[in-house]
Amino acid sequence: MQLKVITSAANEHYKHWKKLNESARACRKAGATLAEGIHLAQVILEHGAPVRAVLIRENSATAEALALAGEIVRSTGAAAYELGAALYDAVSPVERGVGITLEVQIAAPERPASPIACDALYLDGVQDTGNAGTLIRTAVASGVRAIAASPSSACLWSPKVLRAGMGAHFGAVIYENVEPEDLRNLFAARRLAADARGGMDLFRSCGWEAGCTVWMMGAEGPGLSDRALQAADARYLIPIEEACESLNVGAAAAVCLFEQRRRRLMLGQERR
Amino acid sequence: MQLKVITSAANEHYKHWKKLNESARACRKAGATLAEGIHLAQVILEHGAPVRAVLIRENSATAEALALAGEIVRSTGAAAYELGAALYDAVSPVERGVGITLEVQIAAPERPASPIACDALYLDGVQDTGNAGTLIRTAVASGVRAIAASPSSACLWSPKVLRAGMGAHFGAVIYENVEPEDLRNLFAARRLAADARGGMDLFRSCGWEAGCTVWMMGAEGPGLSDRALQAADARYLIPIEEACESLNVGAAAAVCLFEQRRRRLMLGQERR
Repeated sequence: MQLKVITSAANEHYKHWKKLNESARACRKAGATLAEGIHLAQVILEHGAPVRAVLIRENSATAEALALAGEIVRSTGAAAYELGAALYDAVSPVERGVGITLEVQIAAPERPASPIACDALYLDGVQDTGNAGTLIRTAVASGVRAIAASPSSACLWSPKVLRAGMGAHFGAVIYENVEPEDLRNLFAARRLAADARGGMDLFRSCGWEAGCTVWMMGAEGPGLSDRALQAADARYLIPIEEACESLNVGAAAAVCLFEQRRRRLMLGQERR
Repeated sequence: MQLKVITSAANEHYKHWKKLNESARACRKAGATLAEGIHLAQVILEHGAPVRAVLIRENSATAEALALAGEIVRSTGAAAYELGAALYDAVSPVERGVGITLEVQIAAPERPASPIACDALYLDGVQDTGNAGTLIRTAVASGVRAIAASPSSACLWSPKVLRAGMGAHFGAVIYENVEPEDLRNLFAARRLAADARGGMDLFRSCGWEAGCTVWMMGAEGPGLSDRALQAADARYLIPIEEACESLNVGAAAAVCLFEQRRRRLMLGQERR
């Protein structure tokens, strides 16, 4: 593997990666993001995601990281760069990592001409990057592979969200900048609002799992916006203890999405 | 409300709070922690938790924060301090808060003479403070109020975990430094291990929700330790999509604890 050595902070590539690492907006604009570590690199290699560059930390990348870097370069034809420790640390999303970071092209799917019949998860104003990543991971694990997010949500392809997603991004189709009113044009599915303030009992109400669904989750604190609630077909409440106000949005999504999965698995079993 | 003004970094109180903010170990040693913000302060006031001091940020605490501070001082007799902005920011767990932080005594319950028959959640090596706090919040919301944690877990009363718990700590009984082998001495309950590597299907297996349970959750990455698995009565697997490796520990706990809650609620309904 040929490594291009970067030792100067004036290097154009370096400046580009630094921007990606520091600003989600820069990621959107460049159509690219940064993925750190062995696990993400392996997932990216497996999914054949378009790698633009492989970044290696000088003198400190682990043998495993170097071997994986070689494999990615061979498989994708991406250029590999060796960065001095201080330069690498300024562009890497993780403080004490294994010394490999990839620049990856963001997969921005085209909006469909007519609504797609599939299950989806909608994030309405979820700004916490850890929560956003966990939500994508939970959705994909539950069998829901389409993710949509409002303009007020975190950039789902930012390095931090990518990291919290643990690779789930590459098994998902991610639509950003989707207004609640546009959901009906995107998905041919019933829109179910998870609302801590009221609605039907998630566990006791029947039939909502039939057909395709879009589960809509709001931000920590405010919950779903009025516009999102108006765009919903029905509202559901997770029956929590009275003394508690609400669940963390990641926990709430896990409960809704896995109750959906449970019902479908059990129904499939009964039909067999 | 009388405010004692602190303007010097040499002040003993200030040095004490700074230690609490910076080190979970210091919290354990002092038997105290720091709680920032309106929501936590309200929960602490409602639960009558022992407040040692009320800290106010000079010239920038909101009117709501000041009113709440006055109420807490009247109700608990705690002393109130006004700190210069820089001093306050050095002891407050939150960067841009509303200007109120409480020093609260940690409630360390005595170990029972004989095992208690109650539901519990056990954290085995969960070190991420956000995950630990979310786990406590999810447990209490699901009706599980006893929390135990291994010595390798995060300090559950550290300011960061307290913040992620959103007040759930004060509705819980929290046992720290509990080895997996000691669970049987603490709780008269079946120990159920949540294990992404194998076990019975959580949804398809019957009866595990009967009687008291201790759900055991492992750390991100390694999962439950061998010792924890050996201390378990049974292992359960959440049936996720094959392409995914595992769920975030907070999402996994939400699925297990709310499947338990769902079964008990539905069973209660059938009995009526």
